[in-house]
Amino acid sequence: MQASAVRHIKITRVTQKGTLEIDDQLAVEEPLEIQLVYGAAGNRTTKVISVTMRTPGNDDELAAGFLFTEGIINNRKEITHIRADGEDENKMVVELADTAVPHLQTADRNFYTTSSCGVCGKAGIDAIKTVSMYAQQDDSLQVSAAVFHRLPIALKKQQELFASTGGLHASSLFDAEGNLIMLREDVGRHNALDKVIGASFLNDQLPLDHTILLLSGRASFELIQKASMAGIKVIAAIGAPSSLALQQAEEFGITLIGFLGNEKFNIYSASHRVVFV
Amino acid sequence: MQASAVRHIKITRVTQKGTLEIDDQLAVEEPLEIQLVYGAAGNRTTKVISVTMRTPGNDDELAAGFLFTEGIINNRKEITHIRADGEDENKMVVELADTAVPHLQTADRNFYTTSSCGVCGKAGIDAIKTVSMYAQQDDSLQVSAAVFHRLPIALKKQQELFASTGGLHASSLFDAEGNLIMLREDVGRHNALDKVIGASFLNDQLPLDHTILLLSGRASFELIQKASMAGIKVIAAIGAPSSLALQQAEEFGITLIGFLGNEKFNIYSASHRVVFV
Repeated sequence: MQASAVRHIKITRVTQKGTLEIDDQLAVEEPLEIQLVYGAAGNRTTKVISVTMRTPGNDDELAAGFLFTEGIINNRKEITHIRADGEDENKMVVELADTAVPHLQTADRNFYTTSSCGVCGKAGIDAIKTVSMYAQQDDSLQVSAAVFHRLPIALKKQQELFASTGGLHASSLFDAEGNLIMLREDVGRHNALDKVIGASFLNDQLPLDHTILLLSGRASFELIQKASMAGIKVIAAIGAPSSLALQQAEEFGITLIGFLGNEKFNIYSASHRVVFV
Repeated sequence: MQASAVRHIKITRVTQKGTLEIDDQLAVEEPLEIQLVYGAAGNRTTKVISVTMRTPGNDDELAAGFLFTEGIINNRKEITHIRADGEDENKMVVELADTAVPHLQTADRNFYTTSSCGVCGKAGIDAIKTVSMYAQQDDSLQVSAAVFHRLPIALKKQQELFASTGGLHASSLFDAEGNLIMLREDVGRHNALDKVIGASFLNDQLPLDHTILLLSGRASFELIQKASMAGIKVIAAIGAPSSLALQQAEEFGITLIGFLGNEKFNIYSASHRVVFV
C-alpha cells in the first residue's frame, strides 16, 4: 500500500479510565476523475466518465476496471495509455486507440444514474446479460467447503491496512485451492472490486471463471453486477448479501456465499459448486 | 419496518459439522427513482433527479431528504405533494409549488457525478459551505462522555432488522441525554441518513443542531456532507472515519467520534463538545 493511502493524525481516545492523546491513522478518501480520450486521429474527444471517491493507489486498475465493468470498453487492446493528468494524481486519463469505439450509451444507461433500466431490477439484470461478454460461459469450477473455511483467515492476514485504519474494504481473488492471487483495498467497496477486475483486465486474465472472489463486507447488487461482467462464478462475502444481489447471482448462475467466517457460512445460490470431501 | 424490507428465502448453512437447509431473510435492495415536478402552472416539467439502490420503506422521507441534502430544495413549504407513481412503489414523485425554483444546477454539480467541484476535495467542501443553510450556525450543544458510552447499546437494541438480516445500515438521532429520537435503516448508508434528515425536514425540525447523529458503520465524506447540510454538529460512528470525512468535519466545526463501542471511543475533531462530569 502506498503512503498516500493513509493519513496520520492525532486523536483523543476516551475510555472509562480517562482520555489519552494518541497517534492514529485514517484511510484516505479522495475523488478520482476518470477521463476518456477517444475518436479518430485529428478528431479526438475528451470526456469525463466518472468521479468516484476512492483511496489513492492502483488508480490505473481502477480506471480500467470501471470502464470494463460498466461495459464502456471490452478489450485490453482498445487502451493505448493510462496516465495521471500531469501533476494531478486525482485525474486518470485513459486513451483509446483511434479505431476503438467506447460504448458510452451503456454508461448513460448505468443502473444507478438513469431510469431506463434502473427502476425495474429485472430489466436491469437483463440489460447486463446482454452487455456481459462472459454471462453465458460454461464452467467447471468446484470448490471444497474446507477452502471456504480457510478464506477469512487468509484475508485477515493480508489485510494489513484494514487492521491499521479499520476503514477499508477489500476485494480479493483466490484460486480453487484457496491460494491468494490478488488483493485490493479501498474506502469504496465497488472501487476495491474495480481495481481487482481492472488489474486482471490489464493483464489479459479475463474471464475470472476459475477464481473465487472474496469480499470483506456485504454483497450488494452493484458488486455482483461488476463480478458477473468479469465472468466470476463463485463469490464469497464476509457479510450479508442483499435481495437484489441474490437475484442477480441466481440469474447468472453464480455461487453466492455469505456470512463467511467463524467456521461456518451460508450458500445462497448455485450450491453445486461447493463440494464436501 | 414494513414487510417489503425483508425477503424470506431458503439457504444452505454449512458448518464444520455438516450442512443444514434453513429459512433465512435478506435485506431488500431495490432501485428508487426520484422524480421532480416543478415550474409555473401550465408549464410544468418532470425530471428524473436520481436513481438510488435502497431498502423500501420511508421513501417519502428518502426523496425529501435527498433533495434537501443535495441542495436542490431548501424549504419544507416548497413541496406540495410526495407520492408513489401509481402502482409503482419504486418511483417517488415530488411535486413542488409552482412558485418554487429547484436548484438543479447544484444537483448537476454533485460531488460524485461531475468534475467541477469533485476533483479537489477542498473545493468541494467550500462549495457545500456556500450551499448549506446551517454551516455558520453557532451552537451550544455539549454531550457527556457517559452518554456516548451508552449509545451503541441503545442502537443495538433498536436495530432489530439489522439483527435479523445483518444487511442494513442505520442512521439514528439521539438527544444530548442519549434518548433515541429516530432511527432509519437501509442497505445504503447514505439512504438511511437521507431518511433521517428527510423525516426531520418534512416535520420542520431542522436544523438538527441539538442532536447527536449515530451511524452504524463507517463515516465517509458523503455522510458528513449530508449531515452538515442539516446543521448536525455531533456525529458518532461505530466504525472508522475517512480522511475526507475528518477534513469536512473540521471545516464545519463538527465533533466527529469514531470506533464507538466497547466502553471506548475516539474523538477526531471539535472535542470541546465532549464533557467529562
